Amino acid sequence: MVVYYNGKYLRKEEVAISPDDRGFLLADGVYEVIRGYQGRLFKWREHLERLERGMKELRIRGVEANGLETVAQHLVFENKLEGGDALVYIQVTRGVATRSHAFPSPETVPTVYVEAKPYSSPVQMQENGAKAILAPDQRWSRCDIKTIGLLANVLASQKACEAGAFEAIFYADGLLQEGTHSSILFVKKDVLICPPLTNRILPSVTRSVVMGLAATESIDVEIRPCREGELLAFDEILMVGTGSEIVPITEVHGQKVRHGYPGPVVKRLQEAFRKLVTEP
Amino acid sequence: MVVYYNGKYLRKEEVAISPDDRGFLLADGVYEVIRGYQGRLFKWREHLERLERGMKELRIRGVEANGLETVAQHLVFENKLEGGDALVYIQVTRGVATRSHAFPSPETVPTVYVEAKPYSSPVQMQENGAKAILAPDQRWSRCDIKTIGLLANVLASQKACEAGAFEAIFYADGLLQEGTHSSILFVKKDVLICPPLTNRILPSVTRSVVMGLAATESIDVEIRPCREGELLAFDEILMVGTGSEIVPITEVHGQKVRHGYPGPVVKRLQEAFRKLVTEP
Repeated sequence: MVVYYNGKYLRKEEVAISPDDRGFLLADGVYEVIRGYQGRLFKWREHLERLERGMKELRIRGVEANGLETVAQHLVFENKLEGGDALVYIQVTRGVATRSHAFPSPETVPTVYVEAKPYSSPVQMQENGAKAILAPDQRWSRCDIKTIGLLANVLASQKACEAGAFEAIFYADGLLQEGTHSSILFVKKDVLICPPLTNRILPSVTRSVVMGLAATESIDVEIRPCREGELLAFDEILMVGTGSEIVPITEVHGQKVRHGYPGPVVKRLQEAFRKLVTEP
Repeated sequence: MVVYYNGKYLRKEEVAISPDDRGFLLADGVYEVIRGYQGRLFKWREHLERLERGMKELRIRGVEANGLETVAQHLVFENKLEGGDALVYIQVTRGVATRSHAFPSPETVPTVYVEAKPYSSPVQMQENGAKAILAPDQRWSRCDIKTIGLLANVLASQKACEAGAFEAIFYADGLLQEGTHSSILFVKKDVLICPPLTNRILPSVTRSVVMGLAATESIDVEIRPCREGELLAFDEILMVGTGSEIVPITEVHGQKVRHGYPGPVVKRLQEAFRKLVTEP
């Protein structure tokens, strides 16, 4: 696999991250995951803007974000992913410097790593639904930034995995927040219910796409906090994200969501989404 | 500098962390910092036990923790640090695997990185005191584990730095917790006051040493939560940690702690500490 690392295209095995990289030492960085559909980078602008916002929040300076599109497209081409589905991963850290908590010298050059690999949508799960569990939200209080500080997500995701589930839905302050690697939406009486964006919810690109599709599909959208206790009272639960696209959650902790099979709203949204990503 | 990386002693420049290392991608790891005084690793057993506990909490398996003492001692020797003061840094991550939130295959070998470098105690700050600021605690809810997920610490530490201060003291739920890279203790009416260990406070080795010294010095110790509003009412504030040892905080947000100079209790504890680390 050809990857991009600090200005160079290399074979992945050639990449040598320094043990002084602040990404390795301090989780001092941000990332993005972008889908390539038949060589087309889906919602590139939105992902890039979120990356830029993340770098701004962390005050990581000196990354020419616009140049990353050329890099991503070159990697899709170099890795012969133009004809199929791909996943582009971008990570930016504050760079290499003698370990200290406070920022290093402003001259420190951020680390930029990009890779592109083949990917297939989880079609079976999209059709049949996935299981989820609930997990207490142990993450930091800036989940609105897509940082590489993902250990709480790792632990909850593993918990889900061991329960035979695909995702863990975080709850905090009595409210349903989001999944460990996806955004969670709900349906009740044909209305798509979306928790408001707060410091505990990432402004998900796919969530935003799905909300837009709901509008064009004449599905009413309501933005409101959702209580933990409401979970099994919803007609449908949707897990949405770059990798998952739209997956219905049909079971939580062994309890069926409504009838335990994908509902009509998720199906309409999936169809609209498929059309969107395959249209020329 | 000679360092240790996954079973080998290498020059630091030779270390090549994989871009798929879960430390780099997901902050999925733990670390320790240990002082070497004249070649002697101070409180090695306590640091190792905390590392082992961290690995257990994160379920990182396969690291022969006992072997790390030999490694650390070898690095102190190889880097000619036997005659002076040194800082040993150990980091263990869950290893290299295709990126996923849930744990990789159990066969994945953890990454172990160790370095030892010369270090000098911040003598001037120990004598004259340091400034601090208060910062809202944005960290995750398992601060009792010494993980590399330190971004909230980084941001608060930088805030301190820009305010001309050396440390930021986290507060959460109205209580004073700990610093970004140190434990915070207080003195009132000659009593050493220590916040109880909770999920928001790391079981600091130096804190424990200082509490022990207080006992031998006949300084009363009280363990109780400390309210944020109490801060400037304390007679003394102590920042303690592996690198700092014992530093008096003499100013918070420009306001003097008591008279703005190191108090008698901190001086007694500093003397006892110095004796402890220099005794043969």
